[in-house]
Amino acid sequence: MALKTTGAQAVSLVEVGPRDGLQNEKTPIATAHKVELCQRLLAAGIARLEAAAFVSPKWVPQMADGADVLAGLKSQRGASVSLSALVPNLKGMESAIEAGVQEVVVFTAASEAFTQKNINCSIADSIERFKPVIELARQHHIHVRGSISCALGCPYEGDVPVNRAADVARRLADVGVQEFDVADTIGVGTAGQTRAVFEAVAKAVPVDRIAGHFHDTYGQALANILAALQVGVRTFHSSVAGLGGCPYAKGATGNVATEDVVYMLQGMGYDTGIDLNALVDAGEWVSTTVLGRPYASRAGRALWTRRQG
Amino acid sequence: MALKTTGAQAVSLVEVGPRDGLQNEKTPIATAHKVELCQRLLAAGIARLEAAAFVSPKWVPQMADGADVLAGLKSQRGASVSLSALVPNLKGMESAIEAGVQEVVVFTAASEAFTQKNINCSIADSIERFKPVIELARQHHIHVRGSISCALGCPYEGDVPVNRAADVARRLADVGVQEFDVADTIGVGTAGQTRAVFEAVAKAVPVDRIAGHFHDTYGQALANILAALQVGVRTFHSSVAGLGGCPYAKGATGNVATEDVVYMLQGMGYDTGIDLNALVDAGEWVSTTVLGRPYASRAGRALWTRRQG
Repeated sequence: MALKTTGAQAVSLVEVGPRDGLQNEKTPIATAHKVELCQRLLAAGIARLEAAAFVSPKWVPQMADGADVLAGLKSQRGASVSLSALVPNLKGMESAIEAGVQEVVVFTAASEAFTQKNINCSIADSIERFKPVIELARQHHIHVRGSISCALGCPYEGDVPVNRAADVARRLADVGVQEFDVADTIGVGTAGQTRAVFEAVAKAVPVDRIAGHFHDTYGQALANILAALQVGVRTFHSSVAGLGGCPYAKGATGNVATEDVVYMLQGMGYDTGIDLNALVDAGEWVSTTVLGRPYASRAGRALWTRRQG
Repeated sequence: MALKTTGAQAVSLVEVGPRDGLQNEKTPIATAHKVELCQRLLAAGIARLEAAAFVSPKWVPQMADGADVLAGLKSQRGASVSLSALVPNLKGMESAIEAGVQEVVVFTAASEAFTQKNINCSIADSIERFKPVIELARQHHIHVRGSISCALGCPYEGDVPVNRAADVARRLADVGVQEFDVADTIGVGTAGQTRAVFEAVAKAVPVDRIAGHFHDTYGQALANILAALQVGVRTFHSSVAGLGGCPYAKGATGNVATEDVVYMLQGMGYDTGIDLNALVDAGEWVSTTVLGRPYASRAGRALWTRRQG
């Protein structure tokens, strides 16, 4: 897959709404709606889209139709689009290959307590288990991202040492992971800490292989993205309309809204390749028409309201 | 009045919720509730509190009881607390003196179109009118702040030139204004622009006399505060529970929530002198008990939810 490299001022966004965003929705969402959401996002200029998770449907029922969602996106594919899926194991990896993704995501954490509770093993064991998955990905020329959860704080451990994400990134690089998704899973981090953690990770792996994944639970996501930008990070995850939340943080707002991120980046002169108006249409549509709730992106809502006159 | 100077790492917050926040509320709020809100904020460690506006009650009916609110705070006063009021003219200034404030706010804008629509005169005329107000304030040893609205964008003019706020600040300094409230009234600014505008203002007036006033309409407030912090600004306005909105931006979220700002600043190691837990109590109380609406501060809601277990 081609990482976006359209110049020094380019910032690449990985849209995670259809996967990380929708996976926590209690009410089943029609496959056709998921496909339409992805189509609208791709049409708005999203170049990297996390569309599915090949996990047990017993574990995450909302993601059971991942193969169908990806099949529905066949006509949208091209050299400029990279579709990804979360894969917990070899079985998931095989499904992802069959579905024709360009990227997969393996996941661990910067917190031992979190990996134990979330995937029932140690960080070291989780990385050990990635090896055959990564080997299979390599054979199929599929880009491998490694998600490092709880890099800025853990719901079980609390504070996480500043070098922990860097240590994990180094170990992930050793087993062949190509991109490092450093995640503030519960949204507790602030800008100074973000700077320190990402500086440490950037010493462990190349900065152009780091992605920042921030949640807006405490309202800190954009400030943290700004701090990471200042470290040199140029790839961020975001979720249209701020879809999603962390099941471990009750009442929490979820992923940072793509609209808010694009508004900031465009204002700062970065090229995201995204049509903000088309993105707002997608965000308003999925919020009100598909999910029947208020449109929660601040920039999205302000732009939508302004457009209504 | 004493500006807070507890060390290099101190950041001073001016709480504007009781004034800028509540002034747009359509339903009348009982004076006793306003007094209790102020008392709770002072008890939480807020040292500078904008509590009233001595404007025409026909113009802003919600602020008609300003003298009573300030009278209700008599027992809270002391060397460490500075209460302020907005004053549009000499009559307002006289009321503010009678009510015993330590600071007053005169207001103009960085946009000619906005001053015309908002206060029906040019920027130059507005500053001319401040002269007798400032003279009276000086006689009473009252600190004078000058609010510069629309420094990052105007609902009528759109973009505002980067040096405009600095020009206005310089002219305000010439007539005796002591502190410069540089405001993104409609919340459209982004971090790079914030940096440029505040750098320009910091060339016109001393940086320790600049305050940043940001709205979260497009979700940008904390990132903009971070950008202004990096310029050296150490005073910010915020509103408990994010109370308030801009009447000129329909559907807009309003002032940045004090809780979100304090959460960021404390996380970054700045001393705000504020007890975040007590602040969250005040924010939850004014939202749900007084105004009957969901608690809108992200950090506040997350901390409140976490506390409920």
